Amino acid sequence: MEGEPTLRLRIFDLNCWAIRYLSRRRQERVRLIGDTLRQEGFDLVLLQEVWSEQDYSDLKVKLAGCYPFSHYFRSGVIGSGLCVFSRFPILDTLLYQYSLNGYPYMLQHGDWFCGKSVGLVIMKISGIIFNIYVTHLHAEYCRDKDAYLPHRLVQAWELAQFIRHTSKAADVVLLGGDLNMHPEDVGIRLLRGWTGLRDAFAEATHFEGCKNGCTLVPDNCFTDKSELLPFPLGIRIDYILYKAISSFTVKCEELKTTMGRAPGVDIPFSDHEAVMATLHIQRQGQPAGATLGTADPALADVVTEARTEVGVGLRAARQQRYSSGRMAVLALLLLLLQAAAALATLAGLGAEQPFPKLSFCLLAFLALGVLVLASGLHLFHTMEVKMLHGTEDQMWMVLRALQERPSEG
Amino acid sequence: MEGEPTLRLRIFDLNCWAIRYLSRRRQERVRLIGDTLRQEGFDLVLLQEVWSEQDYSDLKVKLAGCYPFSHYFRSGVIGSGLCVFSRFPILDTLLYQYSLNGYPYMLQHGDWFCGKSVGLVIMKISGIIFNIYVTHLHAEYCRDKDAYLPHRLVQAWELAQFIRHTSKAADVVLLGGDLNMHPEDVGIRLLRGWTGLRDAFAEATHFEGCKNGCTLVPDNCFTDKSELLPFPLGIRIDYILYKAISSFTVKCEELKTTMGRAPGVDIPFSDHEAVMATLHIQRQGQPAGATLGTADPALADVVTEARTEVGVGLRAARQQRYSSGRMAVLALLLLLLQAAAALATLAGLGAEQPFPKLSFCLLAFLALGVLVLASGLHLFHTMEVKMLHGTEDQMWMVLRALQERPSEG
Repeated sequence: MEGEPTLRLRIFDLNCWAIRYLSRRRQERVRLIGDTLRQEGFDLVLLQEVWSEQDYSDLKVKLAGCYPFSHYFRSGVIGSGLCVFSRFPILDTLLYQYSLNGYPYMLQHGDWFCGKSVGLVIMKISGIIFNIYVTHLHAEYCRDKDAYLPHRLVQAWELAQFIRHTSKAADVVLLGGDLNMHPEDVGIRLLRGWTGLRDAFAEATHFEGCKNGCTLVPDNCFTDKSELLPFPLGIRIDYILYKAISSFTVKCEELKTTMGRAPGVDIPFSDHEAVMATLHIQRQGQPAGATLGTADPALADVVTEARTEVGVGLRAARQQRYSSGRMAVLALLLLLLQAAAALATLAGLGAEQPFPKLSFCLLAFLALGVLVLASGLHLFHTMEVKMLHGTEDQMWMVLRALQERPSEG
Repeated sequence: MEGEPTLRLRIFDLNCWAIRYLSRRRQERVRLIGDTLRQEGFDLVLLQEVWSEQDYSDLKVKLAGCYPFSHYFRSGVIGSGLCVFSRFPILDTLLYQYSLNGYPYMLQHGDWFCGKSVGLVIMKISGIIFNIYVTHLHAEYCRDKDAYLPHRLVQAWELAQFIRHTSKAADVVLLGGDLNMHPEDVGIRLLRGWTGLRDAFAEATHFEGCKNGCTLVPDNCFTDKSELLPFPLGIRIDYILYKAISSFTVKCEELKTTMGRAPGVDIPFSDHEAVMATLHIQRQGQPAGATLGTADPALADVVTEARTEVGVGLRAARQQRYSSGRMAVLALLLLLLQAAAALATLAGLGAEQPFPKLSFCLLAFLALGVLVLASGLHLFHTMEVKMLHGTEDQMWMVLRALQERPSEG
């Protein structure tokens, strides 16, 4: 300790579920979130799913007094939905958009349109450099047959890589957000193992909130009860993670979640529960060693497991690339065949029979439509294959390095 | 000097122009590049436009002896085209795909399909940590009326931000690649000002090659002579930039370019000239101060200039978003009108006149086609607006910080 007292930081994290026209009682809830944040006076607020820039602007105006610094991360068609409010100045920001994020044709899921990303804000509080990350990963729509698992794993990997590469000058790293993964899922283990981040819920000295720290609970009137049937207590998918990098220690003194409704009122903030952590940051004499998870012997197993899942996704993507390519070629052949038939008719062949103009045109348009769509899909799945393949390669490189390391010792 | 001798690093950078089926004498040139690299034995090779993974694999096999370490960056539909060969082990890699990169419907330009990116490889050579970046920015197709300038500026900005955020633990930063900008262009000034990178050509003690260090020259048999008419000596758009971050100094001892043909043969490596630098890296007693360009009083002017151009792009993108949205609405109205007419006919109205089935169907398909295309364009330009707006905001934040700083001193 160099005369510096312990820093106490209060953090609020919430997936706000503020989709214009779709989320129920959105405006009322955004007002409620703003009022609570103003009353409670946290140090740092990490929000997700603030899809409307108007909602962000309204919050910014309302919170200008107690959170004079804020940032909204723009990306995708709709926006990343990520924003940060802070009592302390924001020195710098950076946005990293995940290379894979579902499929544009899955309109009912819509994740693709959000341009899911991780936002980084850098702050200096009491001389301590904080790298604060806020993110929202691809949703899980069906746990038993999770078609998006490879994409979410690529996102978890890119998130981990982004944190590792950008946090080298930081004293403390914080990550808050909706990771759409259960605590024991391979993506969480990968993220934690590869970055060395610790889970505020697991580390908290004092916990108050939903059982097991769940953030999607049946008691919340906005949650889809059928989705939670296999999990009667709810699930935990919203996290606050942290680590100290240089000569600091971070402890989670207290972790709280809301419990199906906002404090003092009868509606919840969102369909998710808010996560609130109180962290203690203290300077210590010598650098905190082994902050990176690479020392963990189980890490190689986790990377192998994740790589296997990415490989499964790669095979599926290759199959889809092939199918869509074949469909495009067939449509092109049909069009060429039709062109030949039309030319033959023009040349006077088969003039004894009436030419079926209408069905001919309908078929041509159908073939053209299929050609355009199938070509688009082919391009998209080619990109998907590239990114899955690239991630598989990167993971392999890390595995090789991990396996070589013990023999050096 | 702590007993460590000066490190001498020889770097080779080239835009290989290796587009399958399109680039002339590609296989011959790739073989030539491989042979030369093997003979010359550089320490580090940064290549762009290696679009075919097969070409990369062939090079990798050929160069396995002298460059045992390599990495290919996958992205986009075609691939980023970026790869690195090295005499020294690659410890880690990261890819950042630029958020804007031209338009998918500009098929004749094709930049969009490449997923233009910056690749980072981290190496430790003689105990010195190197962050090595390789990139290729969006091409300039018409200098007088450069429609891609805002996109290239967003890329230059994202490149600078990516370097700043990821290089904090590096001792030495190197950037090589085809930046598609002339040395005095605002994007280069922005990149250099905001990162503090120095231009190997300007700093070189000894230079040998095309006049003014040009890398696209009329003497090269593959260059488009009409494009170079306003520049009889050629243009310089390929760079090697560097800086030392911690207690090191970097000096460029020698810079060379090829001169319209590869050494000893009658064809060039590519339509671009290769850039070859010999750098001297030396440890010095105290940290090299002011490596970041933020101390430069002219930086605010450069950021303002860049922000103005991004603003011009933002207005154009908003206009295109509006036009495509209006077109989609009109097509939808036409379809609705047709549906109403069809229903009226089915209900027996206007039965006295024959219903023009063929032209009705043609019109309906046309309207549907326009609706799909215009909606796609609208989505795309919405994303474009988001990213240009986000960059404008980030630049504004930096400007505010730059303007506040002098008053603190």
